[in-house]
Amino acid sequence: MIYLDNAATTPLDGEVLAEMLPYLKENYGNSSSQHALGRKSQHALLCARDSVAKILGCKSEEVYFTSGGTECGNWAVKGVCAAHGKGHLIVSAIEHPALIESAKDMQKQGFELTFVQPDNDGVIQPEEVEKAIRPDTVFCAVMHANNETGVIQPVEKIGTLCKERGIFYFCDCVQTAGVLPLPTKFCDGLSVSAHKFYGPCGSGAMYIREGAKIQRLISGGRQERAQRGGTVNVAAAVGLAKAFENSVKGAEENGKKISALRDSFVKRVLDEIPDTRINGGGEKLPSHANISFGGCDGENLLFLLDLEGVAVSTGSACSAGAVTPSHVLTAMGFSEKQAKSAVRFTFGQYNTVQEVDTALKILKQCVNKIRCLKK
Amino acid sequence: MIYLDNAATTPLDGEVLAEMLPYLKENYGNSSSQHALGRKSQHALLCARDSVAKILGCKSEEVYFTSGGTECGNWAVKGVCAAHGKGHLIVSAIEHPALIESAKDMQKQGFELTFVQPDNDGVIQPEEVEKAIRPDTVFCAVMHANNETGVIQPVEKIGTLCKERGIFYFCDCVQTAGVLPLPTKFCDGLSVSAHKFYGPCGSGAMYIREGAKIQRLISGGRQERAQRGGTVNVAAAVGLAKAFENSVKGAEENGKKISALRDSFVKRVLDEIPDTRINGGGEKLPSHANISFGGCDGENLLFLLDLEGVAVSTGSACSAGAVTPSHVLTAMGFSEKQAKSAVRFTFGQYNTVQEVDTALKILKQCVNKIRCLKK
Repeated sequence: MIYLDNAATTPLDGEVLAEMLPYLKENYGNSSSQHALGRKSQHALLCARDSVAKILGCKSEEVYFTSGGTECGNWAVKGVCAAHGKGHLIVSAIEHPALIESAKDMQKQGFELTFVQPDNDGVIQPEEVEKAIRPDTVFCAVMHANNETGVIQPVEKIGTLCKERGIFYFCDCVQTAGVLPLPTKFCDGLSVSAHKFYGPCGSGAMYIREGAKIQRLISGGRQERAQRGGTVNVAAAVGLAKAFENSVKGAEENGKKISALRDSFVKRVLDEIPDTRINGGGEKLPSHANISFGGCDGENLLFLLDLEGVAVSTGSACSAGAVTPSHVLTAMGFSEKQAKSAVRFTFGQYNTVQEVDTALKILKQCVNKIRCLKK
Repeated sequence: MIYLDNAATTPLDGEVLAEMLPYLKENYGNSSSQHALGRKSQHALLCARDSVAKILGCKSEEVYFTSGGTECGNWAVKGVCAAHGKGHLIVSAIEHPALIESAKDMQKQGFELTFVQPDNDGVIQPEEVEKAIRPDTVFCAVMHANNETGVIQPVEKIGTLCKERGIFYFCDCVQTAGVLPLPTKFCDGLSVSAHKFYGPCGSGAMYIREGAKIQRLISGGRQERAQRGGTVNVAAAVGLAKAFENSVKGAEENGKKISALRDSFVKRVLDEIPDTRINGGGEKLPSHANISFGGCDGENLLFLLDLEGVAVSTGSACSAGAVTPSHVLTAMGFSEKQAKSAVRFTFGQYNTVQEVDTALKILKQCVNKIRCLKK
């Protein structure tokens, strides 16, 4: 199988799994337990937290382990709403469903909500955010890079706008963690998800600026400074920290390698397959290629590619199987038909030149097949 | 080390880990992805869900995978509150902090809250619940068995009371799953946590009766029928299902073995160490022994036992390090001093007669040491 769906999830790095295994086996103590076995887990957790804080450039006390990026996004929206009781929320129209659905849930509870639209390139312009700001705005979410197009957003400018006005700015960094330096200094909260950078599934981390006005989402015991209840999943936290470290260390080299693969793939698709276009413009992540194939239904293409052993996606995995077209592409001005002709190829550190070659050959055949059938 | 803290967490069963490993290695697909690798994960998830549903005696569509018991408790309280907008909540005074703290958070948002007190044995009497019910009561939580004392609660009667009045009854079964048959038919929601029955940490399951009035806690993509967003942790779900199956299969035999160990330990403590008493009465789980040692501070005793290689706890791990005494024991009428003299010993399937013997010898020495120092 040729796996070109690294934005949906990455394989777990063997070295990371090896770091986790002792906490799945002999070091099974509850990190809140006061005996030696518990303290061993607690120590591992402290080290993991310090390591994440060091990468983020924040205090260890500003790092919280969670069950993943979606929990973080919910915490941000709902936690800020709970702290304020009322107010106005700004969410970009290209956010992950974790943010969009949470904001809609809060809207049902009386909060006001504005979606900021991207330009045709898929960029949320700071001026558009500025226009949306109201005196009662309490929250703003614009992601670091979009999960469908890979388009990097001007988060430092948006963060500064929010900071000047005392608005909680949340930056979903799920796609950029381990790839780009993160905008910790420009936001009040940010999220990362381990399974997007070769760490384990079910493991996220949240940065919350000390003193930021936000309440907890998951109440319970005294874990995570009483801000996130539940027995901490130590193996998951250890895995996240190790995978994050490895990814940051290898970011430059892997970035070059991955973007070279992606760029050669994109160039050849555009050159060799007629009526194709690359979606999203401006600065992009090294991994993403969102491509429309005129006259093709993206889902059909996905299924044909799958039969030939090439794994891709049409949008985000979280929306897979949805009958509606990508909310990201339609926000960028695509018609329903155009949006449905798109396929997302996302490259990762384990992909090879040979795989890209083979995938391209198969892709050509599949596109031809669909187009011939339609004639 | 002699591990007598199985209520805080259990070691992960090697067979369970073996079932999980393929989903941490080669089968890494996102269960929402539509390609073959994703479908493989989805299939594993379906099987895990079916297996849990079979044990619970409910439909597969009534089972939701979560990050653990605390998330489930939060979902129950906050989800019912969100569905109703206002109303009155009943929570037993001996619930886990996941329930108590969630209910207090909802109280801050305008919901009214009544804590039902247990009797001196630690039992929540159905009549007390009945007295607390008001016309606007929308939610009631009484756990299946208490995590500190092991006292089993009359949940069928309480569930029936609630059912007759259309009140959402949530039963926290974290301590009883894999040990006792669960009261699925008598409640609208219940929770289990894998790491309490030799499964992985960070893995819970929630039963929600079809048609029950509750909203989601974690919004996002279409996972878990759009009721729990976030990439599903397939390895964790597979592990939970396998561990649950194994525990249920072995429940009778293990129950006998564990209660025999516990009973002999308790008998000898009461016989051979003066001024001791067992806390909590009536029907109890086979695993728990909550014992007060007159003239001893439980935390001191824990530390001494730990130095000698015996792992116990003073209350729940979630409250460990709290300066306040156990909320469960104080609710049962204990003075602060009495409550602080208690230690919880919880036995598990890997404990042996030899360990119990050794633990008892060490315990005697430690209690003597503390008592001598105080003279």
